[in-house]
Amino acid sequence: MTITTALPRAHGAGREESASDVGRLVVSCPDGPGIVAKVSTFLHRRGANIIQSDQYSTGPVGGRFFLRVEFHLPCLTSQLAELTGDFATEVGSAIGGTFRFRDAGAVTRVAVFVSRYDHCLLDLLWRTRRGELPVEVVQVVSNHSDLAADVAAFGVPFERVPVTRETKRSAEHRQLELLRGRVDLVVLARYMQILSAEFLDTIGVPVINIHHSFLPAFAGAGPYERAKERGVKLIGATAHYATEDLDEGPIIEQDVVRVSHRATSAELSRRGADIERTVLARAVKWHCEERVLVDGRTTIVF
Amino acid sequence: MTITTALPRAHGAGREESASDVGRLVVSCPDGPGIVAKVSTFLHRRGANIIQSDQYSTGPVGGRFFLRVEFHLPCLTSQLAELTGDFATEVGSAIGGTFRFRDAGAVTRVAVFVSRYDHCLLDLLWRTRRGELPVEVVQVVSNHSDLAADVAAFGVPFERVPVTRETKRSAEHRQLELLRGRVDLVVLARYMQILSAEFLDTIGVPVINIHHSFLPAFAGAGPYERAKERGVKLIGATAHYATEDLDEGPIIEQDVVRVSHRATSAELSRRGADIERTVLARAVKWHCEERVLVDGRTTIVF
Amino acid sequence: MTITTALPRAHGAGREESASDVGRLVVSCPDGPGIVAKVSTFLHRRGANIIQSDQYSTGPVGGRFFLRVEFHLPCLTSQLAELTGDFATEVGSAIGGTFRFRDAGAVTRVAVFVSRYDHCLLDLLWRTRRGELPVEVVQVVSNHSDLAADVAAFGVPFERVPVTRETKRSAEHRQLELLRGRVDLVVLARYMQILSAEFLDTIGVPVINIHHSFLPAFAGAGPYERAKERGVKLIGATAHYATEDLDEGPIIEQDVVRVSHRATSAELSRRGADIERTVLARAVKWHCEERVLVDGRTTIVF
Amino acid sequence: MTITTALPRAHGAGREESASDVGRLVVSCPDGPGIVAKVSTFLHRRGANIIQSDQYSTGPVGGRFFLRVEFHLPCLTSQLAELTGDFATEVGSAIGGTFRFRDAGAVTRVAVFVSRYDHCLLDLLWRTRRGELPVEVVQVVSNHSDLAADVAAFGVPFERVPVTRETKRSAEHRQLELLRGRVDLVVLARYMQILSAEFLDTIGVPVINIHHSFLPAFAGAGPYERAKERGVKLIGATAHYATEDLDEGPIIEQDVVRVSHRATSAELSRRGADIERTVLARAVKWHCEERVLVDGRTTIVF
Repeated sequence: MTITTALPRAHGAGREESASDVGRLVVSCPDGPGIVAKVSTFLHRRGANIIQSDQYSTGPVGGRFFLRVEFHLPCLTSQLAELTGDFATEVGSAIGGTFRFRDAGAVTRVAVFVSRYDHCLLDLLWRTRRGELPVEVVQVVSNHSDLAADVAAFGVPFERVPVTRETKRSAEHRQLELLRGRVDLVVLARYMQILSAEFLDTIGVPVINIHHSFLPAFAGAGPYERAKERGVKLIGATAHYATEDLDEGPIIEQDVVRVSHRATSAELSRRGADIERTVLARAVKWHCEERVLVDGRTTIVF
Repeated sequence: MTITTALPRAHGAGREESASDVGRLVVSCPDGPGIVAKVSTFLHRRGANIIQSDQYSTGPVGGRFFLRVEFHLPCLTSQLAELTGDFATEVGSAIGGTFRFRDAGAVTRVAVFVSRYDHCLLDLLWRTRRGELPVEVVQVVSNHSDLAADVAAFGVPFERVPVTRETKRSAEHRQLELLRGRVDLVVLARYMQILSAEFLDTIGVPVINIHHSFLPAFAGAGPYERAKERGVKLIGATAHYATEDLDEGPIIEQDVVRVSHRATSAELSRRGADIERTVLARAVKWHCEERVLVDGRTTIVF
Repeated sequence: MTITTALPRAHGAGREESASDVGRLVVSCPDGPGIVAKVSTFLHRRGANIIQSDQYSTGPVGGRFFLRVEFHLPCLTSQLAELTGDFATEVGSAIGGTFRFRDAGAVTRVAVFVSRYDHCLLDLLWRTRRGELPVEVVQVVSNHSDLAADVAAFGVPFERVPVTRETKRSAEHRQLELLRGRVDLVVLARYMQILSAEFLDTIGVPVINIHHSFLPAFAGAGPYERAKERGVKLIGATAHYATEDLDEGPIIEQDVVRVSHRATSAELSRRGADIERTVLARAVKWHCEERVLVDGRTTIVF
Repeated sequence: MTITTALPRAHGAGREESASDVGRLVVSCPDGPGIVAKVSTFLHRRGANIIQSDQYSTGPVGGRFFLRVEFHLPCLTSQLAELTGDFATEVGSAIGGTFRFRDAGAVTRVAVFVSRYDHCLLDLLWRTRRGELPVEVVQVVSNHSDLAADVAAFGVPFERVPVTRETKRSAEHRQLELLRGRVDLVVLARYMQILSAEFLDTIGVPVINIHHSFLPAFAGAGPYERAKERGVKLIGATAHYATEDLDEGPIIEQDVVRVSHRATSAELSRRGADIERTVLARAVKWHCEERVLVDGRTTIVF
C-alpha cells in the first residue's frame, strides 16, 4: 500500500504546538470484505473517536472502495508518523491501495495561476483572508501584469511569467522553479494557457481548473457569443482536475444560473463569472478538506 | 408582409359561440422607428385594450423586432379575419415582416411521437386532461406498440408505424398521411428516430423535441453511463425546435437537477426523466401560448 | 436497545423464495467510541459484505450517532430473525439506542390520503406503476369522491371517508379501522384535513405530508394569492413528517422554482403543483429506502 | 401626473459632454385604453428609437399599468428637461400616474450601511470597481469600526456612527446630515439596526435591504441555528425595499442554495453569505437600471 505523505503545517512552528486534535484518514483500495471492520477497529484501539465517516464502493465485487474518516485523537500531531507506520503494517498490507493520515488543521499551500480576468482570483484571496478556505496562497503566477496591484493588496507574492508559443517551455521551467516544494495545490483561476503534460507530471500536486459550461457545450472561442446565438437558457461552470486532455479531467463541482434572451453576451459573461467563482471556491474548499477522491476519470465527493 | 393563418378553434362550432374576447397579435419584422406607435394606434382605434405586451429588438439598427400583444376585444372571433386584413393594409405593408392574429382561446392540435419511454408522453396527456395545456392531442404515433394501452386510457388515437432503416421513407409517408391537415404542432416525446428533412418540410408545422443535456455534453449512445463515468454533478434536459441538424435547433427551455456520485446511471436516468417531462411541458405550453418566437437559430421567450 | 420489527415482504410467498440477498441495517444510538468497529466486525463475521454505508454524528461527546448500512448476504431473508437476535445480544446491548435489519427488496405498504387536488396522488400512483418507488399503494382514502375513478384506473382500492367538524372523530376511527395492520406508511398527498394527535399515535407508522413553501412563509389561507401580493420570486414545497404541530415536523426534502411578476396566482399554483409532486416523490422514495433518519425535530438524509 | 426628477449625472461636468444617447422612460399609471399608442407616438415624433420596452398591467379594468422604455435619441442629455415638460403636457395629463425620463448612462449615488459582516459590502465595492454596477458608492456608514480599513482600500469615505438604544435618534440625525442630497439609494448590506419610519421618510430615496430566508421562515435571533434544528434543506436570501415593517417590504430578488444535514450552522451561514451577496448585487443592479417598479407591496421586475 502506498503511503501519501502528510501535508506540512503551513503556519510555522508556533502553530504546531497548538495543534488541533482532529485528524483525517483517507483510504482508497480494492473493495472486499472486512475493510471497515479493520479500519474502525484500528482507530478504536488507538483511542480515536470517529467524528464523521463517509464511504463509497463502486461495487462489492471487483470494485473500488473509498473511505474518509474524521476523528478526534488527543495529541494527534505528535502521533501522525507513528499512526501512519502502524496503519501500514496492521491494515494497509491487508487491504492494499493507498491511504493517508493528515492533521485536519493543516493548511494547504496554494499557487494560483491567472491571466487577465480577476473574478476567480480575487474571490479566492478574499475568502482566504476571511478564513473561509483552509489554505495559504503562497504565490500568484500570471502571464500578464494586470492584476499585480490587486494581489499585492492581499500581501501575496505575484510573479509575471509571460508565455508565448516560443517561450512556453522555458516559461513552464520558470514556473516549476518558482513553485517546486512550496505548494500542495495549483489552482487555474481563469488561466488562459494550456499546461503541458510535462508540467503536470513535474509539479506533482493536483491542479484544479475552472471553465464555463453550457447545455450543450460550446467548444472553442467566443463561447458566450455562441451560447447567445443558440438561445441557451442556462449557463454554468465546471471545476475539475486538470489533465493532459484539457477540460476532460474528473469533475469536482458544477452549477448553473438561468438567463433569458434579454441578456447580452456581455451579461452572460458577467453571470458566468459569478458562477465560476462560486464553483471554484467550493471545489478548492472541498479538495483541501480532502472530500474529493479521484477514481479514474470520475470523482467521489463526500 | 406575410400573413400566418389563424388556428381553427378545435372544439367545434358550439365553442365558437362562447368564444373568449381575448386575442393575440404576434409580429416579427425588421426593427425601425415607429413600429410600436403604429401597432398600438391600430389596436387602440379598433377598441382593443392591451392586457399584456412584450417586445424585444436584437438591435435598433439592422436588427429584428419581435412583439407579442395580448388584448381584449369584444366579439373577437367574428372580427379576426377583418382585423387581419386591415392590419396587413394599414400596418403590415409599412413595417414588413410577418404577423398573425389569433384567438387566445384557440386550442393547438398536437401529434405526439414516442418510442418506448413513457414519461414525457404520459405527462403531456395527463396535463392536457387537467387543463394545464391549451392543446388537444389528436394523435399519438409510435414505432413500437408498448404504450398503446396507456394512450387508449386517455381516449386518444394511437397508431403504430414501425420504422426500420429500409422502411423509413414509407413510414414517414404513412405518418404524413395520418397527420396532414390535422395538427398544428408535432411533439417528439422521446421519439428515438431521426425525422428526415423532407418530413420536416412537408409536415409544415413546428416540431418540438426533448433531449437530455449535460455539462459537458455527451453525444451518442449511453449518455447517462458516460456522464456517470465522468463524475457529472448536474444533469439536465433541453427542449428545442427540431431541425435537420438533430439536437441543434433553437432552444426553448432547459433545466437541471443536482446529482451525486451515489447515483447509479439508472438513478441518473430516472432523475433525467423528471427533468425531461417538466422541461417539455413548459416548452409545449409556452409554444402554444405563442410566447416563443424564433429568430434564426435562437429564440425569444416572452 | 429497542428492536424495530422488519417489514413483511408485500408481494406474497412466491416472492419470498426469490428474495434478494441485499439487506439494510439502520442504527440510531448515543455516540461513543467503537460503534463502527463493533457493527462492522459483527457484519464481517456473518459474511455480510458492505455495499454502501453512511454515518453521521451530531457530536462525538454527548451526541447521537446514525448509521445506515446496505450489505450483501446470501440467503438474507431466512437469516433476518437470527441476525436481529444476535445483533441485539452482541452489539445492541453495548451501544444502546435502536436498530433494525430489513430486506432491501421489501416493499413498503402505503396508504395515500387525498382531498381534491390530484397531482401528488396521480404522480405517486404513476411512479409506483413504473417501478420507480419500492412501494405498494394498498389504499387511497379521501374525504371527497372526485378522484375515485382515477384511482380505480390504477387498480387501487379507494375509500371515501367524509370529514366534517362534527364527524372528525368517527371519520378517523373509520380510517384507522381501514388501515390498521395493513400499512407501513401514510402519505398525505394534499389532504386538506388536520389529523389528530390520537390518530398519529394510534396509526403507529410514519406519516409524510407535503405543503407549499415560500420565502418568507405565508401561513393560513390563500398562500399563492398572498405570495403574489408580496412579489415572491421563488415558490417551493416541503415534504416532512407529520406531527401534532401541523407543518412543523422534521423536514425530509424541499425544492423551489423561479417565478416572475407575470405569473398569475393560478400559474403560481400550477408551478407549485409541479414542485410538490416532485418533492413528495423524492421524500417517499428516500423514506422507503430508509435513507431518512429522524433526530428529534430534524432529519439526517443519507 | 407627478414628475420624478431625473438623476444628476454623478461624474462631473466633463462627463456631461460625452453623454450617451440612450435614455429611459418609466411610467406607472392607471391602466386604460391607448396608453402605449400615446407614449410610443410621442417618442416616435421626437425621433427616439425604442431599444427595449417592457410593460405590464395588473388588469385592463381598474388595474395599474407599468412601462419601461429604453430608447436611443441623439443629444439626449440636452433634451431631457424639454422632453419631460412636453411629455407631461402631451401625454402625462391624459394618462395620469407618474413618469420619469432619465439618461441611461447616469450613475446612481449609493450609501451603504453595514455592521460587522463584510461579505455584502465588499462584494458591492468590488463589483462597482469592476464596472459591473452603474453606481458610485459615495459613503459607507457603519455602527462599528471593524470594516474601516477595507473600505478605505477602495477609496470610499467611511463614517462610524455608533447606535445604542439611547442614541438611536441622534445617530439617525447624524446619518441624515451626512447623506442628505448626496445619495439616490441607500443599501443596507447586513446593517443590524432597524431604521425608524422617520429616517425612511426623511432620507427620501429608496432603501434596499438583504436578509436570509428559509422555507419556512425563522424570525428572530439565531436563524441558522434554528434552520439547522429543523433540518432545512434549502437556505436563501431575499432583497427587498425597506419599509417600516422590517423585512416586509416589496421583494426584488430571491435565491436559494441546497444544503444537507452535514452542514454545521457555521457552514449554513457561510453558504447563506454567498447567496446574500449575489442576491443583493442583482437587486442593486436591477434597481439602478430602473428595472424594478413598485406596485404597493409587490414589485414588477422587467
